[in-house]
Amino acid sequence: MKRALNFNAGPAALPEWVLEEAKKTWMDFNHTGMSVMELSHRSKTYDDVHNEAIMRLRNLLSIPDNYEVLLLQGGASLQFTMIPMNILTKGKVGAYVLSGSWSQKALKEAEKIGETTVLASSKDSNYTFIPELDKNTIPENAAYVHITSNNTIYGTEWQDFPEGLSVPLVADMSSDILSRPINIEQFDLIYAGAQKNLGPSGVTVVIIKKDLLERSSDSLPTMLNYNTHAKSNSLFNTPPTLGIYLLSLVLKWAENIGGVESLAKVNSEKAKLLYDVIDESDGFYKGHAEKDSRSKMNVTFTLPTDELSKDFLNQAKEAGFVGLNGHRSVGGCRASIYNAVPVENVRQLADFMKKFQEQVK
Amino acid sequence: MKRALNFNAGPAALPEWVLEEAKKTWMDFNHTGMSVMELSHRSKTYDDVHNEAIMRLRNLLSIPDNYEVLLLQGGASLQFTMIPMNILTKGKVGAYVLSGSWSQKALKEAEKIGETTVLASSKDSNYTFIPELDKNTIPENAAYVHITSNNTIYGTEWQDFPEGLSVPLVADMSSDILSRPINIEQFDLIYAGAQKNLGPSGVTVVIIKKDLLERSSDSLPTMLNYNTHAKSNSLFNTPPTLGIYLLSLVLKWAENIGGVESLAKVNSEKAKLLYDVIDESDGFYKGHAEKDSRSKMNVTFTLPTDELSKDFLNQAKEAGFVGLNGHRSVGGCRASIYNAVPVENVRQLADFMKKFQEQVK
Ligand SMILES: Cc1ncc(COP(=O)(O)O)c(C=O)c1O
Ligand SMILES: Cc1ncc(COP(=O)(O)O)c(C=O)c1O
Ligand SMILES: [Mg+2]
Ligand SMILES: [Mg+2]
Ligand SMILES: [Mg+2]
Ligand SMILES: [Mg+2]
Repeated sequence: MKRALNFNAGPAALPEWVLEEAKKTWMDFNHTGMSVMELSHRSKTYDDVHNEAIMRLRNLLSIPDNYEVLLLQGGASLQFTMIPMNILTKGKVGAYVLSGSWSQKALKEAEKIGETTVLASSKDSNYTFIPELDKNTIPENAAYVHITSNNTIYGTEWQDFPEGLSVPLVADMSSDILSRPINIEQFDLIYAGAQKNLGPSGVTVVIIKKDLLERSSDSLPTMLNYNTHAKSNSLFNTPPTLGIYLLSLVLKWAENIGGVESLAKVNSEKAKLLYDVIDESDGFYKGHAEKDSRSKMNVTFTLPTDELSKDFLNQAKEAGFVGLNGHRSVGGCRASIYNAVPVENVRQLADFMKKFQEQVK
Repeated sequence: MKRALNFNAGPAALPEWVLEEAKKTWMDFNHTGMSVMELSHRSKTYDDVHNEAIMRLRNLLSIPDNYEVLLLQGGASLQFTMIPMNILTKGKVGAYVLSGSWSQKALKEAEKIGETTVLASSKDSNYTFIPELDKNTIPENAAYVHITSNNTIYGTEWQDFPEGLSVPLVADMSSDILSRPINIEQFDLIYAGAQKNLGPSGVTVVIIKKDLLERSSDSLPTMLNYNTHAKSNSLFNTPPTLGIYLLSLVLKWAENIGGVESLAKVNSEKAKLLYDVIDESDGFYKGHAEKDSRSKMNVTFTLPTDELSKDFLNQAKEAGFVGLNGHRSVGGCRASIYNAVPVENVRQLADFMKKFQEQVK
């Protein structure tokens, strides 16, 4: 069986090893005579799966003990509202850095809950760069600062994160979590839908500093209160057990290949392959992102004309590349090269890009 | 490979055919070279999976066109709060029938949102029966009446549903949806976590009458507003694609064996096997539920002493039966015999129960 050259933005390629492992246990998990989905979420066998997933994430990202790791449902989109519901307390203001569509959506949900402010934005340039955060603009009554670490649609990524803020830092890391080492202690809340770097869709990871949990009001709906899930080890109600098992396998795979340091090295290599083609194309391929804001996860580019972009996408599809269409807000092309995308596939894409350019000349 | 005798309350047994089918496509769905989880949720291939799941549910349950079928995340527990958020409008009261722990939890979430009232309850008898709903007790300003069609923990089930109510009827059908024919038009909103009769955990089905959607306020958080999902065919954000694929397979399996009429027939047969053992045991096995409230999905019973219950559970476990421990609120034993549990397995349990009783005498 030939694996596709999968450059989907999410849900995205998974490590072949993960698929093979899951297949092995599919009908009979751990000699139970049941698939993992058929286990009770209150059974010892499932509990081990659940705790292993959490422990692996803790180890891979060196998450200190004063942070909770929650495995939730609803996607990153539900976090857009859970965050202000839980931590945007009365009299405070949610402070947002706008670096793309997802931060805009996060802001929109916060506006429904309480006061908000925009600290910086690159909207006027169609989000071609990560705007500078000037600490002096953070209001004294800020409840938190929210950033989007990687902008999936525009292909920009924070290179360094704000340090020494006097208020909690919240980051949507949906599309670059586990792609590079981070210092968890710079953050107070990190969240990510699993479907790019962590596993299948249907699981959302929330990493939250324990002292932030004190803000959540008891009057919140039970399922929307972080404390509910923190207190019950994310087993308050039935968790998405199959998704969590697959998450755990992805994390095991990440451990096996050497953890985030190794992943980061390969990710840099992969991104360089594509950005080099862009930079050496004499302007034939034009990157959407400014160089100092380039994402290592989503490489966005356009061709000289819409017609050529179309041709490129059609021929790429013919050649077996999947998921290269750019999002409509940017147009052109996007190659999502998450952790599970093999270097070899990226090299094939780089070669294809070069050949396409030559052929057109 | 020997399949377990799985009587889990949920997540629960799935049809072996579903597991086999999913396994076949695991590494290469529909000749895409990708697993179904690796497909973009915006791709044609996934869209077909998604729509097929919805269409199959529509067909199996004869859902009329004036109802939306939503595929959400968060479990039935998130519906406990989404329902009052969306349809418990100002000045109105949410009216609940209490028939078990789940209805109590549903009520508790509604209390956080608005005014509520309890129309009937069997709490004083430890929920051994479905309380009678006297229509005259429904307040004029009721926003809706909420019932739990099957009480997973106590093993009771509504036999006939209220008819001709002047207010919308909302039902938590988590543990008996698709187990018997129902007249959808008696209901205005039906919801169910998938993990008993429909598939793996991580998918929640909501069937809602379109005119009820008018109640949801635009000020609701986007993800918690039913209209968001109705307008986007449950593709507003990334859906749990793998779970929905498995749901679709379960529904195909249900079609293949003849739909809900056939399922209901087999379910009655299975339930009779166990209730007959109870009724013919001279009081050795004592059903928790009163006869006219018995569930065909969860058969709950105790033995003469806690010691005997323990022995029974230990020996049953030894003999390969899984998931027979009763919930702590009832004690004793519970056999969950959802759609996917084969008659043959239930017969084995019935025989085991008879033998255990003989052996003890
Ligand atoms: C950065 C970012 N945030 C949020 C989301 C929304 O995630 P979900 O679909 O899980 O709600 C996405 C999805 O692509 C994303 O890339
Ligand atoms: C009748 C009923 N309602 C609600 C729930 C809660 O479902 P979930 O765990 O999907 O939130 C359950 C779970 O067992 C149930 O049986
Ligand atoms: Mg973006
Ligand atoms: Mg801090
Ligand atoms: Mg119950
Ligand atoms: Mg009605």
